[in-house]
This record gives sequence, structure tokens and C-alpha cells, in this order.
Amino acid sequence: MAAWGERLAGVRGVLLDISGVLYDSGEGGGVPIAGSVEAVARLKQSRLKVRFCTNESQKSRGHLVGLLRHLGYDISEGEVTAPAPAACLILRERGLRPHLLVHDGVRSEFAQVDTSNPNCVVIADAGEDFSYQNMNKAFQVLMELENPVLISLGRGRYYKETSGLMLDVGAYTKALEYACGIEAEVVGKPSPEFFKSALQQMGVEAHQAVMIGDDIVGDVGGAQRCGMRALQVRTGKFSPKCGA
Amino acid sequence: MAAWGERLAGVRGVLLDISGVLYDSGEGGGVPIAGSVEAVARLKQSRLKVRFCTNESQKSRGHLVGLLRHLGYDISEGEVTAPAPAACLILRERGLRPHLLVHDGVRSEFAQVDTSNPNCVVIADAGEDFSYQNMNKAFQVLMELENPVLISLGRGRYYKETSGLMLDVGAYTKALEYACGIEAEVVGKPSPEFFKSALQQMGVEAHQAVMIGDDIVGDVGGAQRCGMRALQVRTGKFSPKCGA
Repeated sequence: MAAWGERLAGVRGVLLDISGVLYDSGEGGGVPIAGSVEAVARLKQSRLKVRFCTNESQKSRGHLVGLLRHLGYDISEGEVTAPAPAACLILRERGLRPHLLVHDGVRSEFAQVDTSNPNCVVIADAGEDFSYQNMNKAFQVLMELENPVLISLGRGRYYKETSGLMLDVGAYTKALEYACGIEAEVVGKPSPEFFKSALQQMGVEAHQAVMIGDDIVGDVGGAQRCGMRALQVRTGKFSPKCGA
Repeated sequence: MAAWGERLAGVRGVLLDISGVLYDSGEGGGVPIAGSVEAVARLKQSRLKVRFCTNESQKSRGHLVGLLRHLGYDISEGEVTAPAPAACLILRERGLRPHLLVHDGVRSEFAQVDTSNPNCVVIADAGEDFSYQNMNKAFQVLMELENPVLISLGRGRYYKETSGLMLDVGAYTKALEYACGIEAEVVGKPSPEFFKSALQQMGVEAHQAVMIGDDIVGDVGGAQRCGMRALQVRTGKFSPKCGA
């Protein structure tokens, strides 16, 4: 195995996943993963550019950053690439008016979006709001559209909270895809557009960047397909059994 | 197109789907589909053998039959092939102890089944009981098993209630399959074993039987793959757009 220096030669920017890499979310705001507060501080003091690249879609960026700052991280809202703002850009560009199947915590990100007479569905990690009634409403909206458009904020299978593994938005997206016989458009990792926007925001080329995450598909695979290097941490949802 | 007499030559038995063919379920027990009470009565007065072959997994057979009799149908519990009793046989044969992700209405079918220390999950049409909490519990049970076994009572995408289209068990099965990286074993239509047990119960060979249903995949496709003939009605979830 090549030495770290060799493997990371030419790296100018570091993209950090948040959940499972910096902290495990959960009751009371979650808990930091040992050493991560210090690691972020050292990275930001180095010559490297740092950006936080998350699929968090249950909380607004403001809420997420407030929570992380409270846990001791040096992080600001402008340093975070998250799927909800990326989705808002797409909605605006394409004149789409979404029915929102999202958690109340992220609804403020869509405050400027016209949601009247919906012509698409946006699904995010709705957590407890993934009730049968809410899923069925989104399903019915899609079935009534001539060309059903489903925009999914990520494809994650699950994430780790302090209380255990939790179903993520990808599972519920699959349910709607199957029921409607359609394929969702994914905003967030592992979508190449999402990684590219993060790279652009930090002014770094793909070959100069390394992605650090706990998800072998969303983080590692997605970044590598964009020409980036990637490292999988052994925290968060990492499992020695399947590497994911 | 061949005449009806020719297409149905040699038919000795008729398998009838229930939801969307006999009645549309919904508030207050649902409503019969015009002409179906009389059609069942005529079939049963004929020389044909009749069996009801349903993927209903939200209600016990007793409850379902009571409801249909109340609507005027000539039907008894012993004439119904349903997935919950079929699943119970499989559980017993293989020494499986299920965690049940099912509606309270069908729980009585599993009264004789050992559910302590579960080594598999059985998922049925849980309706409103498909809460995030219940889905997540089933997911966690599967993730803790070395060889996760998921038994699904059907693969239906949706069904029609009087209030509109409703997500069926297949959508939620897909969600768990995706989250756990596994494939469910399906009990119910379109599983060949399920159709074969219905044929056996009525003492008719596949080539002597016709299945009548509203689902192009579960009813028509499944029956045809078993060597039966099949007819799709234009009631229930049938849609001229997609035939399903």
C-alpha cells in the first residue's frame, strides 16, 4: 500500500461528509465522533481548502450548522453543500412546483418555492413524517401527473443515529419508484452534478480533491466516478461486514 | 379475436381476485362492483368450480368473508386462498419466528405462530401501520440477522379504495429490500406456489383454469406463467393508460 503522502499527492481540497464522519445525529442533537472537532480545526488551519458535502435533508443548513457549532465545530453555513438548496435551483430552472414530502426541519429551505398546483414531488429524509398518509399523498400526486417527476434528495439506504440504524430517504424513494413505475432524479451524493457544484464552490479540480465519508456508495463510489480520490472512515454506518 | 366459447374451451375452474374485481374496499366496508354479486352467484350455480384467490393481507379471511357476505356475496372462508395462512405454513416448515409488520386486522391469522426472538420479518399490507417507527423496527430486526429473511405477502404496487389509489405492500417491501440489500420471498400472487395451492384446493389442473383479476402483473401475468388462462377486468385499479 502506498504511503499516505503518495496517495494524497497534489490534493488541494478536502470534502467532508457530516453525519457518521463528524458526528452521529440523534436525541439531544447527537454526539461528536472522537477526534473530529480537532481534525476539522487542523484542516482549516492547513493550506487545504475544506468543504462540507452532506446529504442531510431533514434539517436546514442553518439548523445543522447551529447544532455542529454547539458541538464545537468551526463551520459556517456558506461552507456547506446540501441537497435542498441544490433542488431549489433545479425547481426554479425547470418551472417545477413541488409537493413536498419532507421533514418540517428542512421546510424553510423551500420558503421561496411555489408549491401551488404541484407538478412534481420532492422527497427528502422525512423521518417520522414518513407516515402512510404522507407517502400515499405523494404517490397520488405522482399518479395524477401525465409525466410524473420525482426528485429525491439522496439515495441513502440508512444512517446511524445514537439510538441505532435509521432508514434513509433512498428506501422511501424506492417505494415510490416501484409504486409509480418511474425513476427518481437524485439531487445529492452520489450525483455527479452535486459533487461538481461542491468542487466549483471551493475552486478545486476533481483530481485535486479527496472526499471523506462513511458511505461506500454515496461518498466513496460517487466521488471516484467524478475523478476524485476518496477515503472511507470506519465510523458512522461503516460495517466491517459489507463496507457500507 | 376468437369467440369467448373458443377461448374458454375446457375451463373447469374459475379463480376470482377479490379487491377491484368483486368490490372496492374503503370506508364503511367498501362497495360492490356493479354486477359482481350476481356474477358470483351464477358461477356458483354453474358446473364450474370457483375459488377466491386474493392477496388481501390487511384483513383476516374471517373478517374479509364477513364483510363480503354482508355485501351480498355467496362466499365462505374455506373457499378463499389468501397469503397469511400460506405464510404460516412456510414459517412452520422452516422453523421461522417472525417479527410481524402487519395490520392489526390480520394478526389473528398468526395467533399460533411463535414470534419470540425473531429470525425473520413478515411484511403484509399494514396500511396506516406503515409508520416510520414500524418500518424502522422491521429494518433493524433484519439488519441484526446474519441471514436476513424477509417474507412479503404480495408484491402489489397499489390497490383502489373508494377514496382513491392506495400504496400496497410491494412498495414497502421494495423499501426494505433496498435498505437491507436483500430480496424478499413473496407469498401470494404472482408466486407460482400460491396459484398452485389454489388449483390444488379446487382440484383443477392449470390448463383447465382461468384467473380473473384487475392486476396485469399479479393476476394475469402470474396465472399465465403457471399455464392458466387469465382475464383482466376493467374495474379496480385497471387503467387504460398502462393496463395496470
